[in-house]
Amino acid sequence: MKQTISKPARERLIKLARLMEVLENESCFIITSSEIQKKTGWTDATIRRDISFLETDCATSSGYDVTKLRLAICRELGLDVAEKRCCIVGLGKLGSALLEYSGFSGTLFKIVAGFDSSANRCETLKADFPLYPTSRMASVIKDENIEYAILAVPESSAQMTANKLVQTGIKGIVNYTSAVLSVSDDVCVENISVLDALQKIAAAQKQKL
Amino acid sequence: MKQTISKPARERLIKLARLMEVLENESCFIITSSEIQKKTGWTDATIRRDISFLETDCATSSGYDVTKLRLAICRELGLDVAEKRCCIVGLGKLGSALLEYSGFSGTLFKIVAGFDSSANRCETLKADFPLYPTSRMASVIKDENIEYAILAVPESSAQMTANKLVQTGIKGIVNYTSAVLSVSDDVCVENISVLDALQKIAAAQKQKL
Repeated sequence: MKQTISKPARERLIKLARLMEVLENESCFIITSSEIQKKTGWTDATIRRDISFLETDCATSSGYDVTKLRLAICRELGLDVAEKRCCIVGLGKLGSALLEYSGFSGTLFKIVAGFDSSANRCETLKADFPLYPTSRMASVIKDENIEYAILAVPESSAQMTANKLVQTGIKGIVNYTSAVLSVSDDVCVENISVLDALQKIAAAQKQKL
Repeated sequence: MKQTISKPARERLIKLARLMEVLENESCFIITSSEIQKKTGWTDATIRRDISFLETDCATSSGYDVTKLRLAICRELGLDVAEKRCCIVGLGKLGSALLEYSGFSGTLFKIVAGFDSSANRCETLKADFPLYPTSRMASVIKDENIEYAILAVPESSAQMTANKLVQTGIKGIVNYTSAVLSVSDDVCVENISVLDALQKIAAAQKQKL
């Protein structure tokens, strides 16, 4: 039976794939374990164990083959498959900042719709994809086969909006708000609130003292 | 000797404190373990173990005392101490969206400065705190006793800017970019890139299949 990769290991592998991508862009095609260690702070044992989850012959006598390693990670984590269609929900300052975000190009993620409770805002904002009033969310998500939502609504309406998203059959939510979202087990949530991040740093620091 | 709380446990406790805050605002002052379970998806054993790290008498015969639980978490994680001064580095769409973010009020985090490589942008943007050209970053961070930086520069200059921040003696970086930052061991980094979050969701989903 296939081994399950733990969440922390998956997160490190995602980071590792990102590193390999940067190296490839810099025309660097071999990296040693100790170079990875230097760039990431992970121990040698951790790096080797994480890579052992992959089905790959990326190890050479002089280090890891950067491209083979990246491809093996993407294959293992399902990051090489067909396009994943996403939407942005909430087009305030933060949500609308994402309308021009270029970081998705070349990835499997594609933003195909934006939603806001203000129809006026949907009309005035500019984007490469259509913007709709929230009332049309359920039907657009179904018609457009949208799998993931980026939630950037005010915290007070975060749970209510998440409930609606779950009802549409969405599979994952990236949560920009500080709200603790309660969703059904089959929906993945990743929290990226800036307040959460600062609190995690403060708590990690306290632990170090 | 005091027990070390693992990173995942710390992150759950931060979430739990947030939940308690919401409950207090709703004038709900007792919560049972099974209600926490329902809201978070964590097992009963996990919840009990996490709470066992705290020095508190928050357990009552009818459930946990919400306020005592929140205060104990904040005390344990160092989230009840003096103000932590923060800055935003990079005032493009994303960074400038944070200028008006109200989520910090009532927390120990206070944004006291913003930086951007464009002096013109610093002059035209409006904020409740001063905005400076990046050239003044080192001196302002020292003079203002800034401990944490929120990094929202373009990905291509993320590592270079992080290096400068580390040199100023900053203690933590919230990284909005997808760059894998390499910093010295005494600096904490929390990554909140939307692309990372989407990849984590896709990888978690693949694992479930």
